[in-house]
Amino acid sequence: MAPRGGGRAGGDVTAPANLLRDLPDARAGEVGETILARPGLRIVRTVSLGQASPPGFWYDQQEAEWVLLLVGGARLRFADEAVERVLNPGDSVDIAAHRRHRVEWTDPATPTVWLAVFHD
Amino acid sequence: MAPRGGGRAGGDVTAPANLLRDLPDARAGEVGETILARPGLRIVRTVSLGQASPPGFWYDQQEAEWVLLLVGGARLRFADEAVERVLNPGDSVDIAAHRRHRVEWTDPATPTVWLAVFHD
Repeated sequence: MAPRGGGRAGGDVTAPANLLRDLPDARAGEVGETILARPGLRIVRTVSLGQASPPGFWYDQQEAEWVLLLVGGARLRFADEAVERVLNPGDSVDIAAHRRHRVEWTDPATPTVWLAVFHD
Repeated sequence: MAPRGGGRAGGDVTAPANLLRDLPDARAGEVGETILARPGLRIVRTVSLGQASPPGFWYDQQEAEWVLLLVGGARLRFADEAVERVLNPGDSVDIAAHRRHRVEWTDPATPTVWLAVFHD
């Protein structure tokens, strides 16, 4: 889920007042906003609306990423796991650096809000 | 909000499967659980139920703490601010190290779930 952290189209904006209100329109693409950035640490909120990773694409990130699904729904796949993980609100997963993964699905009917903590 | 991070009674347990389900019983005291610990980084989920800081007590923490209220409600006070901050779900605040603060109130009627990211 690197695009959430790395300067993606949709851009990085500073800390929204509330992470769950006044969500950006993600119909044209995921929107990532950096909430906090320190050396070795980046907290990013991303809003998805039906996006998934392109067929055959795998994220291979330099940083580890702890991600928490705040609202909505998603399915995440790891290259080293046979089955997808279904993520519901409150579900979290720590993704080690360079552990290949992809987003198979996000709910097209309602925004999915992710909180990602990128760390060393 | 140091007790959430520093070995408080209630203890540190490893990552619950879902941060919003099967909440621990916080009637007798806040319950903090470490979700992730790395050098310079600690992610802690804390459940409160009506607790507040003791009268006259101020947290004065070595680490900075970024905190997000996931569910419930709370009021937070900083020694350098005249008025309390009301925190609703989705509200976050980054508390600098040694910035004195206290929890004035948490909702006694329903659990309040905090996500805290302690960082350097």
